[in-house]
Amino acid sequence: MKTYSVKELLSEVNVPQDVTLKGWVRTFRANRFIALNDGSTINNIQCVVDFENTDEEVLKKITTSAAVEIQGSLVASQGKGQNVEIQVKNIVVLGESNPEEYPIQPKKHSLEFLRQNAHLRVRTNTFSAVMRVRSALSFAVHQYFQQNGFNYVNTPIITGSDAEGAGEMFRVSALDAENPPKTEDGKVDFEEDFFGKETNLTVSGQLEAETYAMALGKVYTFGPTFRAENSNTTRHLAEFWMIEPEVAFMDLDGNMDLAEDFIKHVLGYIKENCKDDLEFLEKRLLDEEKSKPQKDRSPMPLREKIDFIVENNFKRVSYTEAIDILKDSKPNKKKQFDYIIEEWGADLQSEHERFLVEKHFKCPVILFDYPAKIKAFYMRLNDDGKTVRAMDILFPGIGEIVGGAQREERYDVLVEKMKAMGIDEKELWWYLDLRKYGTAVHSGFGLGFERLVLFATGMTNIRDVIPFPRTPQNAEF
Amino acid sequence: MKTYSVKELLSEVNVPQDVTLKGWVRTFRANRFIALNDGSTINNIQCVVDFENTDEEVLKKITTSAAVEIQGSLVASQGKGQNVEIQVKNIVVLGESNPEEYPIQPKKHSLEFLRQNAHLRVRTNTFSAVMRVRSALSFAVHQYFQQNGFNYVNTPIITGSDAEGAGEMFRVSALDAENPPKTEDGKVDFEEDFFGKETNLTVSGQLEAETYAMALGKVYTFGPTFRAENSNTTRHLAEFWMIEPEVAFMDLDGNMDLAEDFIKHVLGYIKENCKDDLEFLEKRLLDEEKSKPQKDRSPMPLREKIDFIVENNFKRVSYTEAIDILKDSKPNKKKQFDYIIEEWGADLQSEHERFLVEKHFKCPVILFDYPAKIKAFYMRLNDDGKTVRAMDILFPGIGEIVGGAQREERYDVLVEKMKAMGIDEKELWWYLDLRKYGTAVHSGFGLGFERLVLFATGMTNIRDVIPFPRTPQNAEF
Repeated sequence: MKTYSVKELLSEVNVPQDVTLKGWVRTFRANRFIALNDGSTINNIQCVVDFENTDEEVLKKITTSAAVEIQGSLVASQGKGQNVEIQVKNIVVLGESNPEEYPIQPKKHSLEFLRQNAHLRVRTNTFSAVMRVRSALSFAVHQYFQQNGFNYVNTPIITGSDAEGAGEMFRVSALDAENPPKTEDGKVDFEEDFFGKETNLTVSGQLEAETYAMALGKVYTFGPTFRAENSNTTRHLAEFWMIEPEVAFMDLDGNMDLAEDFIKHVLGYIKENCKDDLEFLEKRLLDEEKSKPQKDRSPMPLREKIDFIVENNFKRVSYTEAIDILKDSKPNKKKQFDYIIEEWGADLQSEHERFLVEKHFKCPVILFDYPAKIKAFYMRLNDDGKTVRAMDILFPGIGEIVGGAQREERYDVLVEKMKAMGIDEKELWWYLDLRKYGTAVHSGFGLGFERLVLFATGMTNIRDVIPFPRTPQNAEF
Repeated sequence: MKTYSVKELLSEVNVPQDVTLKGWVRTFRANRFIALNDGSTINNIQCVVDFENTDEEVLKKITTSAAVEIQGSLVASQGKGQNVEIQVKNIVVLGESNPEEYPIQPKKHSLEFLRQNAHLRVRTNTFSAVMRVRSALSFAVHQYFQQNGFNYVNTPIITGSDAEGAGEMFRVSALDAENPPKTEDGKVDFEEDFFGKETNLTVSGQLEAETYAMALGKVYTFGPTFRAENSNTTRHLAEFWMIEPEVAFMDLDGNMDLAEDFIKHVLGYIKENCKDDLEFLEKRLLDEEKSKPQKDRSPMPLREKIDFIVENNFKRVSYTEAIDILKDSKPNKKKQFDYIIEEWGADLQSEHERFLVEKHFKCPVILFDYPAKIKAFYMRLNDDGKTVRAMDILFPGIGEIVGGAQREERYDVLVEKMKAMGIDEKELWWYLDLRKYGTAVHSGFGLGFERLVLFATGMTNIRDVIPFPRTPQNAEF
């Protein structure tokens, strides 16, 4: 007999009256009403047990998180809160869950407690909703790019080059930690290591993605990247997933068009496909923020915030204009910013980015043409000699969510910038080759996937939007 | 003016007569015919240059791999081999490519030479076709699972547990390699390391995926996994991508159904969406195999091999039956196998797997119920006490492509097996929790993505189906 998912049953589409279902007990009320969930949806289905005709021993085992199999009839519900319910004809407890021992009690737990039980937290409404939205967003990413002629490229995770300088790296080694082989001058001999040299975990797939863009035209990566930075914040992970499209023959304007269109697609996709989860997450956030001071609350409710992105044109503003706006702004003059903007060249902080989006423009903002000094070596130098064709996309509540650029396609200019910034040309011989053989204008951007999930779910700590977060002192599971 | 892709132009759908296109020169023949490619398809578009009215200096720069922008008219072709071509009105060389220096000459290069130029090899027909098929297969994987109600789970790459014992692991560390901190007894003090303990790169996301299946019901992973094994073969990579679905309330029969349906879907997807690439790759393989002895050739042409999977029912055979068949087989009796099958309990080699598929059953085969001794600790023990609910799927030409199992859901049995196999219970406390709180039958499988791409493209070395292969002594790029 086919097992129906709770989602199928609640939809009432193509479902017979007599059904089998399997799932986990969320609550069992009045010895009669089981709220059953199987992960297919945030919603539980109410299963009504005929307790007078059910073995006492079985009833005792119907506890939170017990796995059960139920045969019953799908009928219109007499009670409030649901259209249909299951009249239970037979119930089998497949796996018990001792309520004295089960860590996740039917009460509100702190998020920190749940992080310590990351293997069980996905059994809560909040985390199951977050992880379904995360999954839907992932798919929307692939769907967008594939529909638009992009090829998915798996750039390497273990890399022999540490040239990009995007951040501190983790070393990868198969040498004996206690007794590594040594060279004559007493250093660790990485020539004896698995790859014959020192290797690290990648901080970005961009440079490798560029090699593929210069052959396949349009490509994107979507894979894990790493930072060995000791940042114990709500915005940083040591291991996170990054999306990096890269397109040949595309300039910075095209890059902005692409990023805007892409973000609207993926957020539009979850609006359409994750309605129940988003409704739940919106309520959760409102609840959570009740106890917070106004200034720490989200600037708008979750679904409104998503609409704010999907329905507004992104305002495109040069860095220079933005600095002028910020210098003249009230919080700058009144010294309400933690970092006062004094002159052109300053690196923008999250508070400035949020001011531009939330207070000044009241729409998503793309800043472009940043000072060369505060951006990476591979960004294309403008004719003014001091700015580069970089862009950052700024979102309400979160600040920068995308960073991108038109890449420096001119061999001589690139070599000069590498020299000035102390980047080893020899190590990036293959990257320079792209500028020697059929070079062309090309652009791309990077989007930290967990930042997007944070935004889309209204969660406030990045550790709560990835199944098993890796942070300083934490690699459990 | 919109730039059209070569694929759009060749399709002749919604294309005006006057067009702009950009791409790289594959060949330039008779000072007149450019074969232009932009990566959107294996096919080039012929662009006919009016050389009498084109600057000599420009003509000289039209060399293999030069990037060009062309304005011209799309017209019916006079020549053979194409329906349409571009009459060039204007051509601009965007990026030159010095033919004396460009490493990829318009001739046949060895695959090993191309591996050393992995940043450029995707500019060849073979590698662009392989990488487009790889991308399409990736998408088909996500599409299949998402359409069927699975949630994508990103299991951790850096792991603090090395309990599974699936293979040698790479250590991940942020300690100073030259002067690591030491404990009192002189060992490396991993408590001082980034995560506060020794960490490694994951060999499988299965155990973590199980935690999610036991809450969301149906999940899948698709991410990089690692083996620090010094295997310099055509079938092994140190870094490869793995697909691991895991489903609650599903037994081994359901697992076989899922795996068969899944594989048919993804191969069916590329049949439909990669026709030109597969046609090219089939020809390439036939060409390559001409010089090989019959026994080393592929058992059938590429597309026939794909059909063989899509159109046949997978034959389900117990390990015990398979051993009987093999013991009685001609190659076993005539000692033509490298490993002679003598008794029940033997581990099967690729030669045996291929014999069953290619000679005996002549269809894809699923073997199940393997001896417990040769399989992992987490597989469900059968009532006979000596076999486990494991399954392997065997393909022509390649042998095992999928390995899966129903998982041991009984706490006591699992603990006993872990003890017997020397697996540390304390380290897998969270895995055991799944058997304490609402345990249920569940199953899943693993499929090494590069093995699938090998099969689907007819390539014979696994280093040629991933953009930047990581193997012993090789982490370039």
